[in-house]
Amino acid sequence: MADIIVNDERLKKFCSQVFVKLGVPEKDAEVTSDVLVMSDLRGIPSHGVARLMRYVNGIKGGTILPNIKPKIVTESDTTAAIDGQNGLGQPAGYFGMNLAINKAKKIGAGFVTVRNSNHYGIAGYYSMMALKDNLIGISMTNSAPLAVPTFGRDMIIGTNPISVVAPCGKERPYVLDMATTVVPRGKLEVLQRLGKDMPLGWAVDAQGVPTSDTKQVLDNMTKAVGGGVLPLGGAGEDLSGHKGYGLSLLVDVLSGALSGAGYGPNVDSKKAGKPVPANVGHFFGALKIENFIPLNQFKATMDEMLSGLKSSNKAKGAQRIYIHGEKEFEKYDEYRRNGVPLEESVIAAMKKLSTEMNIKYDIEK
Amino acid sequence: MADIIVNDERLKKFCSQVFVKLGVPEKDAEVTSDVLVMSDLRGIPSHGVARLMRYVNGIKGGTILPNIKPKIVTESDTTAAIDGQNGLGQPAGYFGMNLAINKAKKIGAGFVTVRNSNHYGIAGYYSMMALKDNLIGISMTNSAPLAVPTFGRDMIIGTNPISVVAPCGKERPYVLDMATTVVPRGKLEVLQRLGKDMPLGWAVDAQGVPTSDTKQVLDNMTKAVGGGVLPLGGAGEDLSGHKGYGLSLLVDVLSGALSGAGYGPNVDSKKAGKPVPANVGHFFGALKIENFIPLNQFKATMDEMLSGLKSSNKAKGAQRIYIHGEKEFEKYDEYRRNGVPLEESVIAAMKKLSTEMNIKYDIEK
Repeated sequence: MADIIVNDERLKKFCSQVFVKLGVPEKDAEVTSDVLVMSDLRGIPSHGVARLMRYVNGIKGGTILPNIKPKIVTESDTTAAIDGQNGLGQPAGYFGMNLAINKAKKIGAGFVTVRNSNHYGIAGYYSMMALKDNLIGISMTNSAPLAVPTFGRDMIIGTNPISVVAPCGKERPYVLDMATTVVPRGKLEVLQRLGKDMPLGWAVDAQGVPTSDTKQVLDNMTKAVGGGVLPLGGAGEDLSGHKGYGLSLLVDVLSGALSGAGYGPNVDSKKAGKPVPANVGHFFGALKIENFIPLNQFKATMDEMLSGLKSSNKAKGAQRIYIHGEKEFEKYDEYRRNGVPLEESVIAAMKKLSTEMNIKYDIEK
Repeated sequence: MADIIVNDERLKKFCSQVFVKLGVPEKDAEVTSDVLVMSDLRGIPSHGVARLMRYVNGIKGGTILPNIKPKIVTESDTTAAIDGQNGLGQPAGYFGMNLAINKAKKIGAGFVTVRNSNHYGIAGYYSMMALKDNLIGISMTNSAPLAVPTFGRDMIIGTNPISVVAPCGKERPYVLDMATTVVPRGKLEVLQRLGKDMPLGWAVDAQGVPTSDTKQVLDNMTKAVGGGVLPLGGAGEDLSGHKGYGLSLLVDVLSGALSGAGYGPNVDSKKAGKPVPANVGHFFGALKIENFIPLNQFKATMDEMLSGLKSSNKAKGAQRIYIHGEKEFEKYDEYRRNGVPLEESVIAAMKKLSTEMNIKYDIEK
């Protein structure tokens, strides 16, 4: 299956039109599309427009409300709690992160929770919003339970990503954006399509025992009979899998318990086989660097630290040491220039939407 | 070598007297001893009084100043930057965390950096200080470079721990306190003493290639000829070692670059073979839960989440699913009741100090 190359601007416009036709206000449609296409541009197709149908189906099925405004439940100079009111996660995230940024700009620190939300795409989109104001940005979200806790075999913790970013001077910003599991489910699906086994240490079978049988694990996950992806660090405590499990819980503490959203097994779950509002929770933060240290000093230190790492000695057989976000910035530049590759199945879904919704299909480069 | 059982209260008093004799003000001596003994009580002997001699030597050698006060460099309602002035890390950490706590109590969020500090012991001591006020507590520190970045072979990143805690209702608090490497150096030293190989995935040799040769890696680390401990997730990217590497950098961004302390290779380093001030950096934070959600609701959710995890189905062969901090709380109860086990070599060092400093040795239970 060859990828089809599309133009990112027209792809964004296409997605926006889809959301607008479904009743999403134009501004919210644009934000949502920008988050999706940004993910593709950064080389993370699993969170990009490949998920468009999921949002479309959520809106059509009534679990995602297209035309609501996030509501501020409680607010102080440094904090706010937002109710996403079961709208799209992207506009709720955009609203929440902007609130955190404005508070940090005014008073030094801003922290905002969001409950009753939906999947918001890549965590890094929101944390990176802080960079234009030279702030440190933080973004976390809980997610559907696809992983098992250390010594467990039930799929009751999320892949719960953490993203923290910091600006640099000459170097590109530091952009950590990581699921707290070894891998996301998407990586298993890629191997399954290729008919390949996965490395031992990615997932466990229904008994909670490490396995490399990709198909079996995915089948078990679909049927929810036990087993699932492992936390960062793998099975048991030998390679510190309890740390990845702890980080996943951290995200549920801040995005779930603190926001009043669901957590672990009750995020994005089904009730009696029927989909219900996902009640995903997010956590956003921003810190003003100048409140701690002169900005130019911070940036100079970041440059020195990151360039020092990159120029340090490589392991045998390795060509390059990366900084977090670096690969994605390079993909972004490449895809902006040459177009974004999309899988044929994703293109097919878009063509179908084009016909159904009477939206011009003009995204190919 | 059988462990010697000691009384924690008398152990604390003994350590305090040692610090006072070295010129440390009584209050600071008590805090420092409390941090050390708390580590032993929580079953983390690597960070306990086994390190007493390291602080004693630091003070005697002039790189740790016994009688200084941490200085607030800049402060706002939500933030502060502190200069530890090369004093002991524990009083500086205690001062910094209390400042963060007081800001969070008043205004909802408090964040404090400390530079020019020293090893502050277990990160969790400071984050847990937030629990008495029902706050979420955050504590991070950078540390001497003992780990290699992903695809690298130079020992230029720290084991940089992250601790985040949250109060519960009936359940014990959630206490994440984790090095961002697979294991600390201490775990290798334990295996070396037993003459054992380590699991593949803990460390790499001088060429940056994974090895299970414990002795060789420790020798390489001492000589700094390359190789060292691996970030959480192991070597390369197959099991997401780049995530552990990214978390280690995160700690250096917040504890190092933001505080103005050293980072990575220049923390606790030697210049021309001579010890210089360690310039360790810390980062503390506190968030007021009621600013986001009613406290009783938060605690009820935490209870439900943690008890749900503990009662979920176990992996084949596993007896129990733990929450972070749980093992340590159980050790604490046991050791408070029955005494704290200390290695013979640690006891020997204490007896020597007792003679040298004319302090009564009365710690054994």
